[in-house]
Amino acid sequence: MFQEQARNTPLNQFGEFGLIKHLTEKIILNNKSSIKGVGDDAAIIRPDEGKDILTSTDLLVEGIHFDVSYTPMKHLGYKAAVVNFSDIYAMMGQPKQMLVSMAISSKYTVEAIEELYQGLLLACQYYNVDLIGGDTTSSVYGLNLSITVIGEVNKDKAVCRNTAQKGDLIVVSGDLGGAYMGLQILEREKAVFKDNPEIQPDLQGFDYIIERQLKPEARKDVVEKLNESGLRPTAMIDISDGLSSEIMHLCSQSGLGCKLYEDKIPIDPSTFNTAREFDLDPTTCAMNGGEDYELLFTVAQADYDKIKNDPDLTVIGYMTDASEAFVLVDKNGGVHELKAQGWKVFNG
Amino acid sequence: MFQEQARNTPLNQFGEFGLIKHLTEKIILNNKSSIKGVGDDAAIIRPDEGKDILTSTDLLVEGIHFDVSYTPMKHLGYKAAVVNFSDIYAMMGQPKQMLVSMAISSKYTVEAIEELYQGLLLACQYYNVDLIGGDTTSSVYGLNLSITVIGEVNKDKAVCRNTAQKGDLIVVSGDLGGAYMGLQILEREKAVFKDNPEIQPDLQGFDYIIERQLKPEARKDVVEKLNESGLRPTAMIDISDGLSSEIMHLCSQSGLGCKLYEDKIPIDPSTFNTAREFDLDPTTCAMNGGEDYELLFTVAQADYDKIKNDPDLTVIGYMTDASEAFVLVDKNGGVHELKAQGWKVFNG
Repeated sequence: MFQEQARNTPLNQFGEFGLIKHLTEKIILNNKSSIKGVGDDAAIIRPDEGKDILTSTDLLVEGIHFDVSYTPMKHLGYKAAVVNFSDIYAMMGQPKQMLVSMAISSKYTVEAIEELYQGLLLACQYYNVDLIGGDTTSSVYGLNLSITVIGEVNKDKAVCRNTAQKGDLIVVSGDLGGAYMGLQILEREKAVFKDNPEIQPDLQGFDYIIERQLKPEARKDVVEKLNESGLRPTAMIDISDGLSSEIMHLCSQSGLGCKLYEDKIPIDPSTFNTAREFDLDPTTCAMNGGEDYELLFTVAQADYDKIKNDPDLTVIGYMTDASEAFVLVDKNGGVHELKAQGWKVFNG
Repeated sequence: MFQEQARNTPLNQFGEFGLIKHLTEKIILNNKSSIKGVGDDAAIIRPDEGKDILTSTDLLVEGIHFDVSYTPMKHLGYKAAVVNFSDIYAMMGQPKQMLVSMAISSKYTVEAIEELYQGLLLACQYYNVDLIGGDTTSSVYGLNLSITVIGEVNKDKAVCRNTAQKGDLIVVSGDLGGAYMGLQILEREKAVFKDNPEIQPDLQGFDYIIERQLKPEARKDVVEKLNESGLRPTAMIDISDGLSSEIMHLCSQSGLGCKLYEDKIPIDPSTFNTAREFDLDPTTCAMNGGEDYELLFTVAQADYDKIKNDPDLTVIGYMTDASEAFVLVDKNGGVHELKAQGWKVFNG
């Protein structure tokens, strides 16, 4: 990190079509539903019978969503793909195809874009997704990355946000707040580096949270596990903007309230300790940090036995009547009304 | 045109979710394959049985693809949608769903984005497409618009670029070069306006070519007509980058050459006269101008009778062996080898 590209082939060495060809000519389509990929006016997909198609899209803007001074291009590509796959898993679906558009300013080299593509394709390989199309163009300022992912789910089996029931248990996978604390470390070391480029960044001991920020994974494994156990959540969302914001989406779309318990919220020790080092409240980081890409879902109480022994799933509360609002019970039994403090993109 | 927004609500009056809700809450889904639209982690589509899915995406960047000083926001939205629909028609498919992402800098008002959305939704209404999802975020510089369109076509009936046969007739719909000449007029009047804001732009008599530039249409009608007549083109592409560039895609992907006749290339009188006014060769404008969004396709010679009486379709040449290269026969019988001079996005 913090290093310059070793090689620097200017982008205009290729034309638009030359660059697309260069980046995509080795792509192999693995899913049988991917009939035709890059190279025509549109890609062709042949869904299996009995499947619904899921689709989601994200636009990532340099200076808003990522900082290339500490984000390696390969990581950026990997993360950009994975956060979109996460949206498909959050419907209990499987991502199958991806379209990638990028607008690139002249400060980027061919090698940098190759690394970005390596990251995208690595994510595709790991999650068994085919890159089937996209658009590549120049930009006036920085890098813009637009990703659309297409997935499938058995007909009528997509799990939405608006179907939680009163009394359902609220479950979260993995742990929360790590990606946010990783970002704090990276921002701190960037500031140190800016003041004195001689000082090398001190990232030792922060591997886990930095990886949570730079190379998150989508919870494919959780979806597979739920499918295997025959447990169908009543509602589901992925945690991109922070637990507070996401639980409020589930509640408001389901017309319900919720009660969460602070001492149940899963926080990794390194997240906890780093938050303390920054004089931040670990619970606040877990509630509002965002970018964890864990799954937040609700299950009927009758299904509790199917999840209770899974160390990767934590029951953090339950759904209540809408009149009871969104409530967090703290470690001392104090009751606080939740406010969404998720990432407000137009208030920055 | 050239006018300020009358009202100016700042974007940060809404949060990200507030703005999305404001823009999308009145959207109604019309296609029965659109099961769930905006508001969850992913949209849900249920394709009809026996259909293949087509998908294409475009990323439009302010300062590269459009100039808001003479592009009304509503027109920008309309065009952004239509050029994507055109890609689906160019496979002989029907567009059905659309995802729209936008990154918006603080110079834009809520009203400007509302107008952009009006244009997008007007195009959706006209072409019977459902807006089912997207992403809205802020940008450091200007407006970025990413559109993904999803369409359908009968199984195995998509028409690709690589299936033209030697001897096939080359057909183009409508006329060419108009959008490019419209752009020249707009750029000229912008320069005049910049020099002296008192002078009102003189656009009289240029309605047709300005509309070709600012509000192009996709050739839904041509696809419908071909389907009705039972004529299946052997290969097809839409003309976004210019006839030269597109015919070379058809030829190279089909492993063939072509012979085009200059005197057959359809050029509207107003395109012709404006080119002359600018001291440009009308044929060059038609060959390389781009943005006409007409369909370029090949048909077997046996199908000539099915198109010969259609005033909207013109046979401009035929496919040859690859060894004969790409050739334009001029009005005096002179033979010129074609070079793609389509819009090279990284050479600007």
